[in-house]
Parts: sequence; C-alpha cells; structure tokens
Amino acid sequence: MKDIVMTAETTLAKLGLTAAELSGGTLKVTSPIDGSLLAEVHETPAAEMGAILARAKAAFKAWRTVPAPRRGELIRLLGEELRAAKDDLGALVSWEAGKITSEGLGEVQEMIDICDFAVGLSRQLYGLTIASERPGHRMMETWHPAGPVGVISAFNFPVAVWSWNAALALVCGDPVIWKPSEKTPLTALACQKIFEKALARFGDAPDGLLQVLVGGADLGKALVESEDVPIISATGSTRMGRAVAPIVAQRFGKCILELGGNNAMIVGPSADLEMAVRAIVFSAVGTAGQRCTSLRRLIVHNSIKDDLVARLKRAYAGLPIGNPLTEGTLVGPLVDEAAGKAMAAALEAARAQGGTVFGGARVTQDVPEGGVYVEPAIVEMPGQTETVKTETFAPILYVLGYDDFSDALEIQNDVPQGLSSCVFTLNMREAEQFLSAAGSDCGIANVNIGPSGAEIGGAFGGEKETGGGRESGSDAWKAYMRRQTNTVNYSAELPLAQGVKFDI
Amino acid sequence: MKDIVMTAETTLAKLGLTAAELSGGTLKVTSPIDGSLLAEVHETPAAEMGAILARAKAAFKAWRTVPAPRRGELIRLLGEELRAAKDDLGALVSWEAGKITSEGLGEVQEMIDICDFAVGLSRQLYGLTIASERPGHRMMETWHPAGPVGVISAFNFPVAVWSWNAALALVCGDPVIWKPSEKTPLTALACQKIFEKALARFGDAPDGLLQVLVGGADLGKALVESEDVPIISATGSTRMGRAVAPIVAQRFGKCILELGGNNAMIVGPSADLEMAVRAIVFSAVGTAGQRCTSLRRLIVHNSIKDDLVARLKRAYAGLPIGNPLTEGTLVGPLVDEAAGKAMAAALEAARAQGGTVFGGARVTQDVPEGGVYVEPAIVEMPGQTETVKTETFAPILYVLGYDDFSDALEIQNDVPQGLSSCVFTLNMREAEQFLSAAGSDCGIANVNIGPSGAEIGGAFGGEKETGGGRESGSDAWKAYMRRQTNTVNYSAELPLAQGVKFDI
Amino acid sequence: MKDIVMTAETTLAKLGLTAAELSGGTLKVTSPIDGSLLAEVHETPAAEMGAILARAKAAFKAWRTVPAPRRGELIRLLGEELRAAKDDLGALVSWEAGKITSEGLGEVQEMIDICDFAVGLSRQLYGLTIASERPGHRMMETWHPAGPVGVISAFNFPVAVWSWNAALALVCGDPVIWKPSEKTPLTALACQKIFEKALARFGDAPDGLLQVLVGGADLGKALVESEDVPIISATGSTRMGRAVAPIVAQRFGKCILELGGNNAMIVGPSADLEMAVRAIVFSAVGTAGQRCTSLRRLIVHNSIKDDLVARLKRAYAGLPIGNPLTEGTLVGPLVDEAAGKAMAAALEAARAQGGTVFGGARVTQDVPEGGVYVEPAIVEMPGQTETVKTETFAPILYVLGYDDFSDALEIQNDVPQGLSSCVFTLNMREAEQFLSAAGSDCGIANVNIGPSGAEIGGAFGGEKETGGGRESGSDAWKAYMRRQTNTVNYSAELPLAQGVKFDI
Amino acid sequence: MKDIVMTAETTLAKLGLTAAELSGGTLKVTSPIDGSLLAEVHETPAAEMGAILARAKAAFKAWRTVPAPRRGELIRLLGEELRAAKDDLGALVSWEAGKITSEGLGEVQEMIDICDFAVGLSRQLYGLTIASERPGHRMMETWHPAGPVGVISAFNFPVAVWSWNAALALVCGDPVIWKPSEKTPLTALACQKIFEKALARFGDAPDGLLQVLVGGADLGKALVESEDVPIISATGSTRMGRAVAPIVAQRFGKCILELGGNNAMIVGPSADLEMAVRAIVFSAVGTAGQRCTSLRRLIVHNSIKDDLVARLKRAYAGLPIGNPLTEGTLVGPLVDEAAGKAMAAALEAARAQGGTVFGGARVTQDVPEGGVYVEPAIVEMPGQTETVKTETFAPILYVLGYDDFSDALEIQNDVPQGLSSCVFTLNMREAEQFLSAAGSDCGIANVNIGPSGAEIGGAFGGEKETGGGRESGSDAWKAYMRRQTNTVNYSAELPLAQGVKFDI
Repeated sequence: MKDIVMTAETTLAKLGLTAAELSGGTLKVTSPIDGSLLAEVHETPAAEMGAILARAKAAFKAWRTVPAPRRGELIRLLGEELRAAKDDLGALVSWEAGKITSEGLGEVQEMIDICDFAVGLSRQLYGLTIASERPGHRMMETWHPAGPVGVISAFNFPVAVWSWNAALALVCGDPVIWKPSEKTPLTALACQKIFEKALARFGDAPDGLLQVLVGGADLGKALVESEDVPIISATGSTRMGRAVAPIVAQRFGKCILELGGNNAMIVGPSADLEMAVRAIVFSAVGTAGQRCTSLRRLIVHNSIKDDLVARLKRAYAGLPIGNPLTEGTLVGPLVDEAAGKAMAAALEAARAQGGTVFGGARVTQDVPEGGVYVEPAIVEMPGQTETVKTETFAPILYVLGYDDFSDALEIQNDVPQGLSSCVFTLNMREAEQFLSAAGSDCGIANVNIGPSGAEIGGAFGGEKETGGGRESGSDAWKAYMRRQTNTVNYSAELPLAQGVKFDI
Repeated sequence: MKDIVMTAETTLAKLGLTAAELSGGTLKVTSPIDGSLLAEVHETPAAEMGAILARAKAAFKAWRTVPAPRRGELIRLLGEELRAAKDDLGALVSWEAGKITSEGLGEVQEMIDICDFAVGLSRQLYGLTIASERPGHRMMETWHPAGPVGVISAFNFPVAVWSWNAALALVCGDPVIWKPSEKTPLTALACQKIFEKALARFGDAPDGLLQVLVGGADLGKALVESEDVPIISATGSTRMGRAVAPIVAQRFGKCILELGGNNAMIVGPSADLEMAVRAIVFSAVGTAGQRCTSLRRLIVHNSIKDDLVARLKRAYAGLPIGNPLTEGTLVGPLVDEAAGKAMAAALEAARAQGGTVFGGARVTQDVPEGGVYVEPAIVEMPGQTETVKTETFAPILYVLGYDDFSDALEIQNDVPQGLSSCVFTLNMREAEQFLSAAGSDCGIANVNIGPSGAEIGGAFGGEKETGGGRESGSDAWKAYMRRQTNTVNYSAELPLAQGVKFDI
Repeated sequence: MKDIVMTAETTLAKLGLTAAELSGGTLKVTSPIDGSLLAEVHETPAAEMGAILARAKAAFKAWRTVPAPRRGELIRLLGEELRAAKDDLGALVSWEAGKITSEGLGEVQEMIDICDFAVGLSRQLYGLTIASERPGHRMMETWHPAGPVGVISAFNFPVAVWSWNAALALVCGDPVIWKPSEKTPLTALACQKIFEKALARFGDAPDGLLQVLVGGADLGKALVESEDVPIISATGSTRMGRAVAPIVAQRFGKCILELGGNNAMIVGPSADLEMAVRAIVFSAVGTAGQRCTSLRRLIVHNSIKDDLVARLKRAYAGLPIGNPLTEGTLVGPLVDEAAGKAMAAALEAARAQGGTVFGGARVTQDVPEGGVYVEPAIVEMPGQTETVKTETFAPILYVLGYDDFSDALEIQNDVPQGLSSCVFTLNMREAEQFLSAAGSDCGIANVNIGPSGAEIGGAFGGEKETGGGRESGSDAWKAYMRRQTNTVNYSAELPLAQGVKFDI
Repeated sequence: MKDIVMTAETTLAKLGLTAAELSGGTLKVTSPIDGSLLAEVHETPAAEMGAILARAKAAFKAWRTVPAPRRGELIRLLGEELRAAKDDLGALVSWEAGKITSEGLGEVQEMIDICDFAVGLSRQLYGLTIASERPGHRMMETWHPAGPVGVISAFNFPVAVWSWNAALALVCGDPVIWKPSEKTPLTALACQKIFEKALARFGDAPDGLLQVLVGGADLGKALVESEDVPIISATGSTRMGRAVAPIVAQRFGKCILELGGNNAMIVGPSADLEMAVRAIVFSAVGTAGQRCTSLRRLIVHNSIKDDLVARLKRAYAGLPIGNPLTEGTLVGPLVDEAAGKAMAAALEAARAQGGTVFGGARVTQDVPEGGVYVEPAIVEMPGQTETVKTETFAPILYVLGYDDFSDALEIQNDVPQGLSSCVFTLNMREAEQFLSAAGSDCGIANVNIGPSGAEIGGAFGGEKETGGGRESGSDAWKAYMRRQTNTVNYSAELPLAQGVKFDI
C-alpha cells in the first residue's frame, strides 16, 4: 500500500475539487480527526430544487431507453475510475469521516465491487416468462426503469452506500439525486468528480444522471416530498426513517430504508473463543462503533462468560487509539462532540440500570487535539434494560449472560431493531436454529463471523425498526424498477381467465 | 352447470351458516339485486381486538415452525373444499355483490386456482445460495414467515382477493386476520366455514390461523395500527390507501396496496375490431364496471373511431340488464344507491366538460325492484379531462381519439392511476412499444385482451396511485415473508470482506 | 391405517386389472414374498413399436399446444386418483417388489407429492426476460415441450420413479412411453388404469399420452434407438446406463440417467450416536438394501467405531425379517434368487479381502417359503477394496475407520459412483466441509440424515457413474423441455450485436 | 478506429508471440486471405497428454476452493487485457480466419462482453434454498466446480467460442484445456499470452488453469476419452459431434455440443422488406457464409418472393469481395480450397435438383492471389431437397416460397438441424406463432433480425443435430458445475420423508 498519509488538501486536489468549490461556501466541513476545517462548501439553494427535479425527469426519459448493457458500460467505467482513485478517495473518507486507513480503503473497495456486480446485472435484470392458462396466449413479466431515485446517506458510510444505490439505480435506468450527510459533503463531491470522468469516457449520456444536493434537512425534505422521485433510499436513524416513510407512503412512492441496528452476538459454550474475541473486537470497536452493523450486544453462555469478558478486557486494553491515518491505529475518533456526549450519557444510564462499565473514558493523551477520542467500553449488564435496547452510535458493548440457547434467542430478538446478528458456536444445531424461522429475526444472521462487514453479493438490510429495505446484492435491484405483467393474445379467440363466459 | 338459482337462505344454510349467525346482529346485509335483507350479522366488538391479535401472534409462533409443505396440505384441503362449495359460494357472491352467475363462479374458480398454485409453492419458497468472496465461507438467503397478515378486502371481489392473500400467507407461515367489506360479510363468513372444514381434515393446526372481523372502519383502523400485524394487504380506493399507508409506514410495517385503477385500451388501426368490441364490452360493463381492472378509457385511432364507436353502441344497445342470477343477464346491479349517484354525477361532469353521452340512464323496467340498475354509458370526450382522470366505480367508458401511437401512449399514461392497460393491434411494433420501458406505465399491460381478468400465475397489481402492491402469482409470495441473508464461516480464519485488515 | 393385508388378487381387481389382462400372457410375474405366480401378462409385440411411437408423436403435436395449467389439471386429477388408490397400489408394490407395507405406502405418497408439485409448476415453467444490448430490442428465453419421453424404470421403485417422470413430462407437454422392469409390470399396468381414470375425468386429452411397454430388453432398446423419442429417462444399473447413453448420444437425444450408487455415511466423533444408529439401520436394511440410495459404506471415526458397530450389531440382531405385509416386519425379501447369490458372492469376496462379516446368512425359518430372505450383513473391512467399491444390491454394510476428517472425505469420494452421501456430526465445521466444493462429490449430501429417503422438492440424482441425471424437484423439469432464446426487434433499425458494422 | 491493416508479423509480435514459437514447428499455418504462410508452430506431443491432464487435475483441486468472486477477478483482468489487445487480436482473427475487420473486432468484443458477464456471475452462481417437509430440517441446492473442461473449437470463431467457455468455466472453478482448430492455432496462442498477462496481475493462481493443445484430431480424441475431463465443450460439425458424444456418454462425462445449423428466415407479406434485405445479406454472406448461424434458407411468402429476390440480387451484385482487411470489403475468402469445392458441389447438386443459381462463381479478379474468393449465391429451389437440408459452410442462400404461414413453419422445421431461425413480419400473430410451442424448433428464434449475431446475454445453442448444448448467457454456466442437493437435520428427531415409518 502506498503512503496515503498526506494532507487533505492534496487529496482533494487530486480528486479534482477546485479551490473555488472548497471555499467561500456556507457549509463548514471539519475533520473528526482534529476538528480542522477542511472546506467551506456551497450549499444547494432550495430554489434550485425545481430545476434539479426537472433535470432528473428529463434524464430519466432518455436513460430508460438506453439498453441496460450500455448503461452497464457507464458503471464499468465508474468502477475503473474508482480503482484509479481508490487511495485518494479512501484517504478522504478517513479525513472526513474519521475512519482508519484500512476501513477507508475497504469502503472504496466495496464501491468497486458493487460496480462489477452491477455490470453483470446489466445483461440480466431478469423477469419471467410464465405459462398461460389460455391457448394462443403468452405471459411474461418484465422489469422497467422506475424513475429518479433520491439517495439520502449518512456520515458513517459516506460513499459506499451511495455507490450501492447509484450503481444499481443507473444500471436499472434511473437517474440519482444524492443528498449526503451534512457532515460529509466532500466525499460526495469527490464521487461526483469521479462519476464525471466516467461520463466523459462514456460519451452520450443525458445530463442529470447524478446530482448532488449539498446542505441540510430542508433539501432532504424537498426530495422526500417530491412526486417526481418515486423511490427514496434513505440511510440513517430510525427517527429519520419514521419521519420520511409516511411522507413517501402518502404519495405512493417507495422507500428503501436502512435505519438503526442493535446488533448482537450469541456466544455458545462450544465457540472458538479466540476467533470470537477477534470478531467481537472488530465489530464492536471498528469505525469506533459507528457502523449501523456494529456489535452492541454480547449474549454469552454463562459457563464461559467470565473467561470471555476477561479476554475482551485484555484486548480492549491494548487497542491503539488515535489518528486514524496513523499506521496501526485501530480506533479513530467519534464523529463529533455530540457523539461523545451521547456515549457518556448511555454509559451513565447503563450504570444506573445496574451495569458495570469497563473503559469508556475520554482519551486526551497521544491523540490529535480537537478530535473526540474515547476508550471503547464493555458494560456487563444484569439484564436487557432500556438503554441496552437503544442504539447508541459509539463503541459500547453490553454483555448479557444466558443458560439456555432458547433464552439467548429471545434476548437477541427482544429489541425493536432488526438489522444484523450472529452466533459463535461449533455446534451445528445451535447454528441452524439461529438461522431458522424460529431463530434470529434480523435481516442479516451470521455464523462465526461478526455482524458487520457484509459482502456485496447478499441483500443488505433489516427488519422492524431497521426499516425493511434491502440494498446491494441478490435481487435488491428490483427495488429500483417497476414490474409489469404482460399477457399477449396471438390467437383469434378471446377466452376469459377462470373459465368466465360473457358472450355478447 | 347445475341450476344455481336458489334462494339465498338455502345457499347460506348449505354453506354452514346458522340462523343464529345470520340474525340478531347490528350489521344489516342487503342484496344489491333487490335490496332485500339477507342477514343481520353480529359485529366484532372493538374490545375483542386485543384477544384477536394475541391469538394471531400465538398462532404465528406455532405455524411458522410447521414445515411449509405441511402448511401447503392445509391449502390443498381448502382447495378441495372450495371445489365442493363452488356453486354455493358462487351464488352467494351473486347475492351479496350482485355479480352475474358466471362471474360469481369465476371468482370461486380463481380461489381454487390460487390454492393449487400455493400448494406447489409450499415445496419451493426458494431463497438463494450465493458465492462468497471469502474462503471457507458459505452465503445463502432464506425466506422466513413474517407474522400475522391483515387483509382488508372490498365488496367487488369479496372472496377471491382474500384467497389470493390467505393461500399465500398461510403457506408462507403467516396467520390471517380478515376485515371484509361491510357490504359483504356473508361471503366472508362462508369462507370461514369452508376454511374450518379444511382445518378439521388437516388435524393439528394452531387456533387462530384465520379470524374474520365483521364490522366497520374502526376495526380496520385497529388492524392497521397494530404493531402485531407486520403486513397489511389492503384492497380498495386510493383514498383508503392514502390513509392506511402512512400509518403502516410509520410503524415500519409493510403494505400490499391494491387501489384504484383507470384502465385504458388503445385500439390501433390494424386491430381485429370484432375481437376488440367483445373485449371492450366485457371489460367495460362486466361486473357493471365495478372491477378495479374495468375498462374506463378507450383510446382509438381516429381512422377507425367512428366505426368502433358505432359497433359498441350496437353492442351496448343489446346488453341484457337485470337480475344477475337470471341466465343470460350480462349486466347486474350497481352495489348501492351511492354508486348510482356517483355514476350520474360523473356523466353530468363529463357532459359539462364537452362529452357526448350514450346510455347511462337508470333502468327500472324488467329489473328487480330495489336494485340500482343502469345502462352502461359510452362517453365521447374531446380530451382527457379531470373527470376522465378520475375513477368512477360504474360502467362508464370514455372514448378519446388519437393520430400518432406515441400520443396514444401519452394519453394512456397521463392519469394518476397505474393498474391495468392494453392495446389492440396486429402490428408487432405497436404491441412491443406498448410493453417496453417507454410504453404503458401500468402494472398490467396486455395485448389483444382487455385490462381485466388476470390469470393467477402473474403478479397482480399496479403503480402510482394504485399503490404498488403485487399479489397472486410470480414471486408475490415474498411480500408475506421476511428475507434473511446468512454468511456462515466454517473455517478457522476470520477474513473480513472488502479486504479490510483489523489485527488486534 | 386400514388393514391392507389382502390377497393380491383382490388388490389387482380393485385396481381395475381384469382377469383377461392378468392371464394367458407370456410374461410370468411372481412375488418376491413367496415366489407365487401373480399373473401371466401379455407382452407388447415388438411389431407394435411403430404404431406406439406414431401415437406418441401425434399426441405430442396436440398436447404441446394445450396450455400448461390445463395439462396440470390432468396431473391434479391423477393425484386425486392416486390418493384414492393409495392403499391398494401400496399393497401391490409390496406384493410385486417385496417392500414392507410402510414403504409401499410411502412410495405412493411420493407419487402424490410429485403430482401436487407438478400442478404448481404448471403455472410456472418459468423462462427469463433478459436485458438486450440493442435499442428497440427485447430478449427472452422460453421453455417449450420437447417431445415424447421414454421412461425406463427398475423393479425397486416400480411406480414412484415413473411418477416423477410422468408428472413432470406431462405438465411440460410431453407424452410418456413407459418401459417398466420385467419384474414389476403389474404395478405399471395398475398405474395405467389409475391414469385412465384421471384421463376420463379430464375429458379431452389426446390419445397416447401414456403408453406402457410390457416385456424385455428388446422393447427398451427400440425405445432408446428411436429418433422419435428425444428424451430417455432411464433408472437402473450403471451397466445398463453405459449401454443406453452412447446410443442416445449418437442420435443427439437427451438422457436422464439414474444409475448405481455406493452411498456412504461418515460418522464423526461428535455424532448423536442414537440417531446415527437409527439412520444407519433404516438406510442400510430398508427395502432389504435394494434402494439406489441404500447405505452401503459406513466411514466411522476410529474413536467411536467399536461402540457404534456394537450398537449396530445389537440392532441388526433384533430386526424382524419376513413377510413384508406382516405388521412389524422391517426386512422383507430380496427380489430374486440372483440377488441372493450376488449377496453371498459379495460377502465371500469381502472375506477374501480381509473383511469380518456379521450376519448375512440366508433365513429360512419363520419366513414365507419361496422367497429369498437374508440377514442384513455388517462387514468390517481393513480398507476400501474392490468389493467395497462395487454396488451390490443387497443389505451389506461395509464399515471403515478413519482418523482425520479429510481422510474420511477421501474415502467417501474414492468410488466410481456418486449418488448419495451423508455425515453424522454435531460439529458445524465438519458438516459444512462435507457440503463444500471440497466435500462430498455426490449429487445428494445430507447432514444428520441417512442417504436414502429424499424429499421430492429437491433435484434427485448423482454424478460420475450414477449418470448425472436429475429428476423430481428444483428445476429438474427443464430436462423435459427445450429452451429457446428469442430476440425481438421492434425498431425500424437493424443494429448488430457486439457493434459489428455491415453496411450494404 | 485505428488503422489496423498491418503485417501479420507485427501483430503476432505485439501479441507476445516469439519467433521461436512461430517457427520450426510441424504445423503450417496459412492465411485464407492469400495462402501465405503465417507460421510453423510446434505441435503438442501426444505423449504430453498425461502430464497435461495431471496439471489440470491439480489445478482443479486448488482452484475449486478459491472463492468464486476471486476467480471472477481473474476474468476481470482478462477482460482488461482483451480490451488492450482488441485491435491486434481482431486483426489476427482476420489474418488467420479471413474475417473482415469489423467482424474480427466484433469477435473480440464478444470476448470482452462475456468476461464482464462472468465477473458479475462470480458473485452469484445461485443455487436454491428449498422448503423441507420435515420439522427441524433445511434443504438447499448448491453448485460446485465440476473439474477440468475440454474445449474444442472451430476455425470460424477461433477465439470467441473459447472465451465463452473459458470465462464461465474459470469463474465456475474449472481449469480449461483448449484444443483449437488446426487451422487457427495462432489466435489460440495469442489468447494464451493474453491470459498469462491477466494471470501475472492476478498473482496466486495455480498452474495449469489454461492449457492449449496445438495439433490434430488425435489430441482432441485423447481429450474426449479422458476420464479426467468430466466436461467436453465441442464446437464443429455434426459429424464431429456424432463421434464425440457417444465416447463422452459412455464414460458418463457431459458434452456441450454446438454443431451444425441450417438456419432459415421466414419473410411474411407484411415484412419491412428494406430491413429484411439488409438482414438477409448480412446473415447470408457475412463471414462468407461460414458462421454456424449463417442464413442458409429463405422461406418467402409467394406474394413478395419475386420482389424480394430481385432486391437481393441487386444487393449481391454490389457486394465488395476481396481482402478482408481492406476497408469496405464485406465478403472475404473461404477458409480453404476444400470449402470452395464443397460450395461448387452444393451448387451443382442444387441445380440438379431443380434449382436456379444466381452468383456462386469463383472470383479471381481484384482479390488477393492464393485465397479462395467466391460470389455469394442465391439459389431459387422448387422445394426443400436433400441439398437444402444439408449444411454447406459457404455463402449459399436457398430460396423457397410459401402460401400459408403454417407451411412456412413446417418447411422451417423440416431439416435435421436446429440452431437458429427467424421471421420477418410486422404481424404480431405471425411473430408470436413463430416463437410458440408450435413454432420454430430451434434453440434460437428471432423476430425482425437475422439468425446470426447473438448477444452474449442469452443462452446460445440449438436442438436436434445441433447437439443440444447451451453456452454464454442465461444459466449456461450450470453446465460447468455439479449440482448438489442437501438436506440438513438440526433437530434431535429422525422423521422420514413421505411419512415412512421404520422403528427399530
């Protein structure tokens, strides 16, 4: 790996962002690493929304008739451009979102992977031909482009989530209007530059295939309310989803929601504990606990609980905390001061509810000034209290014990969220029960891997308060298209289905 | 076909409904045929909703672990019982909803068909196994039962729509709570009796797999608001859907909406006009224009418009209107007086907007007293006015002319609804354009058949104000299940996706 | 369960076979139970093959255009008739093939299950719609009926295998010509009677949808060689398959081969031994070891080998051997004297190769005279010798030890056959490895169930000398159809794929 | 497009072939363009086959456990290298196979397309999860790598057919042994070089993933007979297939056969004749009639036959014949003198059978000396004689008239081959009938495009003497894998399928 520790300025320049674009604006972008000002970008005026929507509609009319494999070619070029920009974009993710280098690069790799996947899809987008009950009739089902897609993304995956949506949407024939988090507009603008390079090589795409909205909640609201945007893909908090979903539902739009998680791991008595420790640490403290799939609850068989917690404490004690761009760092900063306070409040509440807290303190030594650095916390809880049932976007791991596997399953499911889950066990009966109809109620359920770090080949998303959306692999692409059922009568007769007679 | 003209009383008795069930209640059920009182049934007390929901939840816990092919056996038995009860249930549909005999029987046949289909599904419910990017890992995606399903159905398909939902839901592992239209509780109660026969033969099903709510909108509201009902399948007006959808969305439930349609047929210059006439008449006046897929708009090439309209008028003039149970009748009654008034108001508005109305008068001669009988109307319009863009649940056919096929497509799509559509043409280019990404924007698009009368093998439903739900065939069953993505690590290593490194 | 012990004569009569059909013929049918003569049936004259083939061709021309759901209705009726005839047909299977009552009934149940499955398929037979790279083009793939299917079946599943093929073939639009084993023509003729009942209820099927060939290998040969039979589905020995396959290949027909198996179970140290014992005994001695999926090789971890073998010997010692129609019998007769001799020869060879034989003797006491009854044998072998690698159609179980799981896998795969296999283990790593790309090389691989007794929902068949065919569930139906790829150009342009230019 | 007319020597050098590789061997490679000697390459000694097979087996053992998405990365790199080498490899195709420039480049584009497609597949390779009938059981079906694939390709698509097979086989986990045509070893060696570049960038692939056999039929025979090569994909003549298929069948290997075609176009009275003429000329004379999908039979409605034939003669008269590398040339050389003689003999026979021949003469003026150049021929035939039913690999187009569409279909199907077919019509009834179960019996059936020039997204191949294989898109990848059906019992019970009881 090349040395990617460089100044953010250079990185931004290499990604094609000009000084004019980075200064003079009203939206101040600071780095969670040290609070330094990265840029002052220009916000999209609310008054421009009309034109933006019109551009997307016009782009849709043209793009939907471009053959899908040709649309795939644009995404192939995008993948090539992402490969070329991987180091820079990965570094910018670190600067802007505070991720460690390896995770920043991993996020870009995920973008590249989804592009490859979408290129393959572009020659599929399979519908069905179906046996008809009537002679001289043919039935089929086809999937057509659906219209502009509004993508609302969060700070913690500032670019990958966009790419999941954009790669599929564009291959499916839909233009994209992207509203990134106010905290991470730079990576969004960088993606737009990269996309424009792909567009230039592609040649004859319509204008308006990708438009980025820089600014606050009012822009998102305009997007969500617009009748011109039949699909809204929104990633963020359950609170946000609860506001967005009814608005879109009322206008008969479709939502792809990726909201809060409260992800658990069950550790059975037969588990490979060394593997479990590594999986727990990565999934609980990776991205400083700020992944939607971060491990938040550890449900451990009582026979091994003390041993496991002891091992975890040892591992936690040695975690390198600090500048995420420094080689070796595993725990970078929280995104902002509010996150630090929320963590402290949650730990306070946990203590009040009977919890014993290990770690969790603010770190001020050997870390960049101006960032919010914390020790990841392990909290042994007497039971699954309200605080445990609440998602706090910080590296807090609640530990609960169990005796019977069925109790462990019940604890796992007894939270309002339903994103990711896993079991560590070598016992095939436990593993299979966990994956069965009576097992985990989450959208993701793993065995002997942590809850985070999904591959792009599967459908990503969760149930209950997580919102029910699915993105990325499998047939998630269908959410970006409309389905049409066709019956074609090529006979000279007119039989009715179900044997109905109606002879005039 | 046996003589099925019999008194409703006998029919109800043969279907197992007792005198106690049919009298003494607060909900009066009258027949659209002649306004006669069929029964006074007992309404479900609102206070019972808690117990009903609890029963459904408990049933779910048990039913979800019953193997799907065994669940399919229940639906196979249901299909057998429906075959045995076909004549009686069909007749009751006629009595309660006013359909002609052949349509009443066709509706029951549709129930039988979906049962056969669901039995086959019960050994499928296919998820995917998926190639994983990590050595020693296995990925798959499985579909699990989702929970109780609330089914809200409308008067015009009082039993088929329930069966679409119930056959799939039950095979998928979900209990059903059914709120039929206030106008058609008897057919619902009859279905419950038939279902109980199947249950008795089945043997060991949990209690509460099917519960019927008799009564008004408050029961529906309780169902829609309940956190215990993750899936709401609602058929009815767009107005109803617009109320239901946001409530369900806010609690992160899922809706399957089948709302209003405003279905059109384009007739091209090459069309087989004789076939077109038959298709138009059936789909415009069948069920007295009260199907969600009824033909409401006729978009005719100007070169053949006069000829086609003349033929239609001749056909309309000869339509036998009257008692739907009388052999030969093709046009039965509207459902109630309100429907008659709405039709008159729409015709009035159409006239005011420049339309020329043929037919549409109230019929009082040679029809049963007490029913609302009307002449189906043909209305030649100067353009697609607001009234044309509005669904009126009555046999009104608006006729519009066109010169270019692309104009015809634009007219077809320029309404807020998106259920069904069709083209009559022998020209393959027109047929294919109609089915293409730039063609009809409806969920159903047919060639050389009318917009109504779908086979159960395809997915049924529509876009825009129609609500986006899909029922019946194809993979519509997925809406009744939850999807889970699984990654299983059977190696002794712990590689991370996207090549991320995190070595503690 | 009703008392189904009745004379074969009554059973045959109840199944509709007349005295004229059962006597006076040249093919003597005897019961393996006691060698008694069941019937003398009439063989199909070789000279009739021309007419038979012509009838099948004519039937195909008509049947292929009957809509698949209507074809499914025939199979639904067949399923109903099979339900009605279950006890009788099951008993006849016992009489003619020597199966115990429960297995005879189970075989008929399998027929019923595949009918239900095929009815569901009849509204699917899904092909694909596919994204085209050219504007104004549409691609799809459809599955069409392929032509008459020749079914060659073996004595050991005299009716189920036929039904797997016939239910799918008929729903797929293909007539069937069935050549059952010379040893079991009566069950075939009974099936034909049952099928005729379904046909009569169905109404308007073409003649010749099912034709049964009674007689010897020459009839099979004529079938295999005929250009009019594009598909040959043959179940039997590898020797037979090796003769059939090249003949069909040379005329570009398609084979579905279900040939020999040499099925193993690996028992790991963590296995639930009680379950393992039950699974081993059923799969090794059920049907007297005459299933293609019978367990023949037991590969046991050396740490538990002595224990497991001791348990097995105890279980074997108590097995009730005798008349399969007697309640409680678990081991019925071998099919004939030749089978008895082959078993003795194999045991002799095993001994010569260092094996220690437990059981295996001929049983003459307390069994019906005239039948070939044997004690099932357990043979501890020093290694996987030639005899172990050879399929002997009798209840011989070879036992081999192993230390490393990878060795067990190697032993499992080191035979020429590749039908079924299983592992008993509670260790998820072993279970998953067994199912992985580097695990079992068989078409069927199970965990914690024996190798026999597949459900009809999965594809049934195996690799290597087992022949590679797949029948029954999943998309096995595709083998009975032909695939067609369609590209439809509805534009007025003629672009070439891959950007080729050719301007005249 | 850059100027790609360059000497073959330069091209070969740019593709990495060394002088040592191109000289001193026993296989003389000449160009069909002018008969000039391109190289003398070294043949693979028969004695090396053992080592080659062993290398493939060893490669398989390693490659099958490499995760499929990682295998896909190799194919992605191959696609990149092919993009980089497109001009050179395309030119070499022209030199060695005689194709015109645009077709040579189109062939390489097809290679690139299939790589993109295969990369997408590498994260799919979907099997199924399936509902089990037993409680506590899980069923699934997975696809595993199958083993080394032998690819036998023909001169006329010297590289694309290999790439179809290799891209899929390698992604599916199978090494490839390639036996190209003796006439086109240079393009094969060039592909090997390109593949090696991809391998080098990939890093850690096992040796032996691609091995090229240079030489004659004995090498092919050794491949076909080897038990170590479970899959043989062979493209060529029906005669070759008839020899290969039984050998592979006897050893229970699997064949993917792409053999002769005798492709027809039906032109209906409503056809867009201008488009038809262009399609006919391209598909009949493109690649000098040496595509397996070349148009050979024109079945024209008698009402337009004279007009169409006259237009065709005009178009044929103006066709630029000559050096395929010269800009503007549309008809290059036949592959060799034998092809020229076969064409002459076919024309002679056609005349004898009543045909009237237009064109067909040998061209000697204005063409490179040493090549076999011919005028494409149009032959009006009185009926479908034996010569018409025979595939002659040359630009001969037989013309037949018809009156009824059903007759046209019968003529279309009345040949032993079943590869490609098409209809030109604007009548949707004709178009649909052509695609129906009673329509074309070919593997490919198009509407308003010629029979040649398939997109890679569909499955390519045909029925009857064409051999039944399918390559390229849709689920053709399954032919390169083995299917495994798994049932996993995670309960502590052992229920048997079909309700069988067997209690020891």
